[in-house]
Amino acid sequence: MAGNSFGQAFRISTAGESHGPGNVVIIDGCPPGIPLTVEDLQFDLDRRRPGQSRLVTQRDESDTPELLAGVFDGITTGTSIAILIRNTDQKSRDYADIKDKYRPGHADHTYDAKYGVRDYRGGGRASARETVVRVAAGVIAKKVIARAFGGHVIGYVRQVGDVIAQVDDPASITLDQVETLPDGTANIVRCPDPEAAAQMVELIETVRKEQDSVGGVSEIVATSVPAGLGEPVFDKLKADIAKALFSLPAVMGVEYGLGFACAHLRGSEANDPYYSEQGPGGRTIRTRGNHHGGMLGGISSGMPIVVRAAVKPTSSLPREQETVQRDGSPSSIRTRGRHDPCLLPRFVPIGEAMVAIVLADHYLRHRGQRGGLP
Amino acid sequence: MAGNSFGQAFRISTAGESHGPGNVVIIDGCPPGIPLTVEDLQFDLDRRRPGQSRLVTQRDESDTPELLAGVFDGITTGTSIAILIRNTDQKSRDYADIKDKYRPGHADHTYDAKYGVRDYRGGGRASARETVVRVAAGVIAKKVIARAFGGHVIGYVRQVGDVIAQVDDPASITLDQVETLPDGTANIVRCPDPEAAAQMVELIETVRKEQDSVGGVSEIVATSVPAGLGEPVFDKLKADIAKALFSLPAVMGVEYGLGFACAHLRGSEANDPYYSEQGPGGRTIRTRGNHHGGMLGGISSGMPIVVRAAVKPTSSLPREQETVQRDGSPSSIRTRGRHDPCLLPRFVPIGEAMVAIVLADHYLRHRGQRGGLP
Amino acid sequence: MAGNSFGQAFRISTAGESHGPGNVVIIDGCPPGIPLTVEDLQFDLDRRRPGQSRLVTQRDESDTPELLAGVFDGITTGTSIAILIRNTDQKSRDYADIKDKYRPGHADHTYDAKYGVRDYRGGGRASARETVVRVAAGVIAKKVIARAFGGHVIGYVRQVGDVIAQVDDPASITLDQVETLPDGTANIVRCPDPEAAAQMVELIETVRKEQDSVGGVSEIVATSVPAGLGEPVFDKLKADIAKALFSLPAVMGVEYGLGFACAHLRGSEANDPYYSEQGPGGRTIRTRGNHHGGMLGGISSGMPIVVRAAVKPTSSLPREQETVQRDGSPSSIRTRGRHDPCLLPRFVPIGEAMVAIVLADHYLRHRGQRGGLP
Amino acid sequence: MAGNSFGQAFRISTAGESHGPGNVVIIDGCPPGIPLTVEDLQFDLDRRRPGQSRLVTQRDESDTPELLAGVFDGITTGTSIAILIRNTDQKSRDYADIKDKYRPGHADHTYDAKYGVRDYRGGGRASARETVVRVAAGVIAKKVIARAFGGHVIGYVRQVGDVIAQVDDPASITLDQVETLPDGTANIVRCPDPEAAAQMVELIETVRKEQDSVGGVSEIVATSVPAGLGEPVFDKLKADIAKALFSLPAVMGVEYGLGFACAHLRGSEANDPYYSEQGPGGRTIRTRGNHHGGMLGGISSGMPIVVRAAVKPTSSLPREQETVQRDGSPSSIRTRGRHDPCLLPRFVPIGEAMVAIVLADHYLRHRGQRGGLP
Repeated sequence: MAGNSFGQAFRISTAGESHGPGNVVIIDGCPPGIPLTVEDLQFDLDRRRPGQSRLVTQRDESDTPELLAGVFDGITTGTSIAILIRNTDQKSRDYADIKDKYRPGHADHTYDAKYGVRDYRGGGRASARETVVRVAAGVIAKKVIARAFGGHVIGYVRQVGDVIAQVDDPASITLDQVETLPDGTANIVRCPDPEAAAQMVELIETVRKEQDSVGGVSEIVATSVPAGLGEPVFDKLKADIAKALFSLPAVMGVEYGLGFACAHLRGSEANDPYYSEQGPGGRTIRTRGNHHGGMLGGISSGMPIVVRAAVKPTSSLPREQETVQRDGSPSSIRTRGRHDPCLLPRFVPIGEAMVAIVLADHYLRHRGQRGGLP
Repeated sequence: MAGNSFGQAFRISTAGESHGPGNVVIIDGCPPGIPLTVEDLQFDLDRRRPGQSRLVTQRDESDTPELLAGVFDGITTGTSIAILIRNTDQKSRDYADIKDKYRPGHADHTYDAKYGVRDYRGGGRASARETVVRVAAGVIAKKVIARAFGGHVIGYVRQVGDVIAQVDDPASITLDQVETLPDGTANIVRCPDPEAAAQMVELIETVRKEQDSVGGVSEIVATSVPAGLGEPVFDKLKADIAKALFSLPAVMGVEYGLGFACAHLRGSEANDPYYSEQGPGGRTIRTRGNHHGGMLGGISSGMPIVVRAAVKPTSSLPREQETVQRDGSPSSIRTRGRHDPCLLPRFVPIGEAMVAIVLADHYLRHRGQRGGLP
Repeated sequence: MAGNSFGQAFRISTAGESHGPGNVVIIDGCPPGIPLTVEDLQFDLDRRRPGQSRLVTQRDESDTPELLAGVFDGITTGTSIAILIRNTDQKSRDYADIKDKYRPGHADHTYDAKYGVRDYRGGGRASARETVVRVAAGVIAKKVIARAFGGHVIGYVRQVGDVIAQVDDPASITLDQVETLPDGTANIVRCPDPEAAAQMVELIETVRKEQDSVGGVSEIVATSVPAGLGEPVFDKLKADIAKALFSLPAVMGVEYGLGFACAHLRGSEANDPYYSEQGPGGRTIRTRGNHHGGMLGGISSGMPIVVRAAVKPTSSLPREQETVQRDGSPSSIRTRGRHDPCLLPRFVPIGEAMVAIVLADHYLRHRGQRGGLP
Repeated sequence: MAGNSFGQAFRISTAGESHGPGNVVIIDGCPPGIPLTVEDLQFDLDRRRPGQSRLVTQRDESDTPELLAGVFDGITTGTSIAILIRNTDQKSRDYADIKDKYRPGHADHTYDAKYGVRDYRGGGRASARETVVRVAAGVIAKKVIARAFGGHVIGYVRQVGDVIAQVDDPASITLDQVETLPDGTANIVRCPDPEAAAQMVELIETVRKEQDSVGGVSEIVATSVPAGLGEPVFDKLKADIAKALFSLPAVMGVEYGLGFACAHLRGSEANDPYYSEQGPGGRTIRTRGNHHGGMLGGISSGMPIVVRAAVKPTSSLPREQETVQRDGSPSSIRTRGRHDPCLLPRFVPIGEAMVAIVLADHYLRHRGQRGGLP
């Protein structure tokens, strides 16, 4: 009811604030027998970690997870898993500004309106800090879908400001392309088009110097997803993935396949005709093109799932903005603290985690109803 | 789990197929004491009804609802409400084509992959026919939010193909503008910009003649929504509205406020500064501009909620398309039956219904946690 | 939230009142491919039907179900199933008495307190009339568990007033023993001990003549349930079966195996030691005795599940009882209408239905998490 | 789905094992503005704590809770609350016995059957150790109902073995009577009848000397509960309280008011007639007697809620019992470790917690649907 849980068969519940003791997630419904260590969790946590590159906030968090429950002798037991990630770099500082003033683009005002009270330190529960445990849960979800059907989720940055990456086949992008540039250095902006990546880095550094921020688009692709996942009529796979992505801070739009471009097209252009391929296990039904983004009737079609999320520019700006105080009296604010000038590079592992969680959830739900599945 | 329910405090569960006996909805959690008659339901049902204009399918359904439960002496009792809408115009005809072949852009293949069996008559449960009971439930949701906080949800067609309506202030659009043209005739395309409306009608008639279809965008606006609705962190209002709209057939994208345009902007452009207005009950906090679309941190801000849904061109085309049979062997199909060449005009009341249901649900959830609310 | 749904993977949602148009159930999550006809539903509906014998209310309902959705060509499709059972014998009569007065032992007062309004005709939603669609759903659940693991649920009357049946091995009782006496006549009280059955019939007829009613106990047994169903820690199988039975009108107590008798015992007496039996598929682990009632740690042990429900005497009495009016002023009431002098005989199929629904639900949930199950 | 959450509007999710790092609970939906400190949690945790008296296990746990989230400046914020209680006295010892053998009366076998793997240390997730965080959550629930309607939940031991306490008016029992004997010493058995308490202590000490254990009954009473809580038809208050209590280890039966005794009675004896009392705020409707246990139609009647739970004798016995090994081969086991010879004294705060959680949940649910409530 109060919204701090997500998923049904693979269900996560979270708690935690930006500057409280830490963030915790309980993962319920994970199949037993899956190998899991804290090291497994660390890889994606490091991809999300603040301080990882010059493009992101310099808040210093090691984001070391503690496995509190649900894992024994290195494997999941089938009972609920709990992971705690403590906050360590809660700078002792003066919050008087955001205690009494509402930061434009933030949830300060809406939390006060909702609860009459709020933990104003660093945005409290509305801070993107809470996503740290989503990423940990996402690692487990990725293991579930990899084991169940070889499923794989990979995200990257498609657009920053007016710089748009050239990606001919989203399903072909590899983790290596996302994380590493052709010259072997870290791809700190996580854009698989090296030329665009360089321009994005430049743009982000420019906006930071200008005490500003910039928006963008992340594209996330799930491959090897079998046809048949997703539930009619309300829990369509596209509905649940969209909910998952819109549950993330700063997401302003979500689209699949053609997305908003479909509005301009004729049906004869938009439809993906069917054909089949002969394989060792029989004929596989596929579509020519993937305008539909991997789901039809809200159920996976066997084609790659391709989704894009529009992420707004960071709202926290180190420049003066017009605002009001709690009592409505006029004021202005310059947000201090350490912030990403562009959210996209760190959004990638978070978006991946949410998509993986939806796929794990829908796989278990589907397996429950159908049976006879591995 | 199996996805035929939506909402929590105001919860709907549905069943029904395109060519079965009918569609039924159970609405659970509706407050007691709300006046409700079948006539109340009919207005929006008529806005969604096939056969209402020359632009839409000529399937002849009166869509007369029967109130089976939950209403006594003309008011809701607080117990579960059930509404049945029978199918009456299930044309007795030959379904051999869609029984054995998969229609491009449809859920025929994915349902078979999911269940191993499907009701192929008219698309079965995947048909947009199922939305008829969502509209009925939406009428009740509209009553709930009107009574609780004077909330009002109105949708319209913003784009068809390349024709884009001019709408300066979404929150100012009236039902009258959506339903009636300045000359007093019916606004059959439901676009509040009369000039664009005329072009849209022309375009839709053209594509029909070409045995084709066309996509578009619907914009839906909720006004008088108080600040404070929506739940952190997964059940953000924007997450649940997006899920609601993506649960509708043919929706390929959803965006709020600036939407995907935010990717191109700087934070200093995108942020909506706060100011306040002195009113009889004290200062009201508002934003200059509504780039954020009425929600911050996923919680309503008190500004109008503005959401757009991209709707793909109707997949059913009365022209030959490449496809396969169930066994994967190549084939082709020309969809017969009665179809809308553009889904947008009838999408409007359906989209409104889903947004209203989310708002009613979140209001009751919020009232439960906070208390002291009317 | 508002309580008109039950179960998760196999989920039923219901609506309907005693004297409204009818009762409807939506069953969500039923596996596809299960043969289902209205005739299948009728058998248990007839076992629950009013008017079936001289022991029960003479309200005349045929209880003919209509399958509105989810079944095509005689088999379930995997989409939501809807069943409607219309009320036909709603006697047109004067409800002034129960409109203004509260019947002792009934929900008249509590519904008014809850909702401020109620459908007073025949008890409205609080009438046991609503269980008619539970029985229909239970038939489908019985099919699910029979197909999945050969599961079988059978109930009977164990006690009426001071008459207690002798049942040495609950797991050995057959449907035939419950429905038919050794002489071939109908076992109208549904007690498998013929001697006790005769005494129960006599007792029930006596209390009816005395314008009174009498309570009793029903025992329900589930056999061939594999070890492993039930979820830690809150959704223990014993917790969900208890909730299912306590959700029925008039149930005042539920116990498993030893039940309340365990309070008097030592651990050395109460524990069931383990042993194993060699079978064709390996050793089967069993317990000596079944004090534990078929569940340990809330998870099925592979032994028969044995549960008892205490059912209070019918509250509606055709004799004067002290009560109050809505405004609290003193009054008295003699309940008219047609009532069972003892609820137990018709309770049997209703209790069975609820236990079967829980088992179907938990089987699908378990299969989802574990996989590799038929 | 996987059962580690309970409640809807006031919802708890838990994780943790007997001998893992600790137990954690996330409480979602708690109203904002409630004062809460770790000291508040400690009182009931101490009532449940091992080692508190000579009657209970001597495992040494301080059960010190850490508030990880959801509380700021000493009050709840309305966002999810997380509480961690670490295990400190996990004796390093040899678990070979319970690793390979199934303890009679325990969940060792059923967990293996369910998951194929289990954390065998001290029973893992099936240990009553998991209830420690339920008690912490229960403290918060008690605060919610006290603030909302002055609600109060108190439990005590009604029976141990054949010793049954005399309790004339359950609603009159005070916490002081439960915790302290007339002579000022601790009432270590938590029975409010001092004479019975003395006999219970003696009996428990006797069975411990005999290397045995003994069962009993706890009675829990909720007072000042307004009429109107509980939802038709599946989420009746009696159904949810029963589920809550049956979700606790060792509970074999639950009954309300007359309970199983109702089977012996006539309706004319069992019904509670209504009368009314004139108070300052108008007439209050009450019943003569409380055979119904405070709920009618599953909805609270305004009378005290009285529920009893039968708790089996501790299954762990320090004496040889017949059992099998994992492979089914015959064996025997003598449970070592530190165990309570009677579970009842420590059951009291646990049972109270579960009843309080159900009442808090149903109050918030009711308030959401009805509105206008404090």
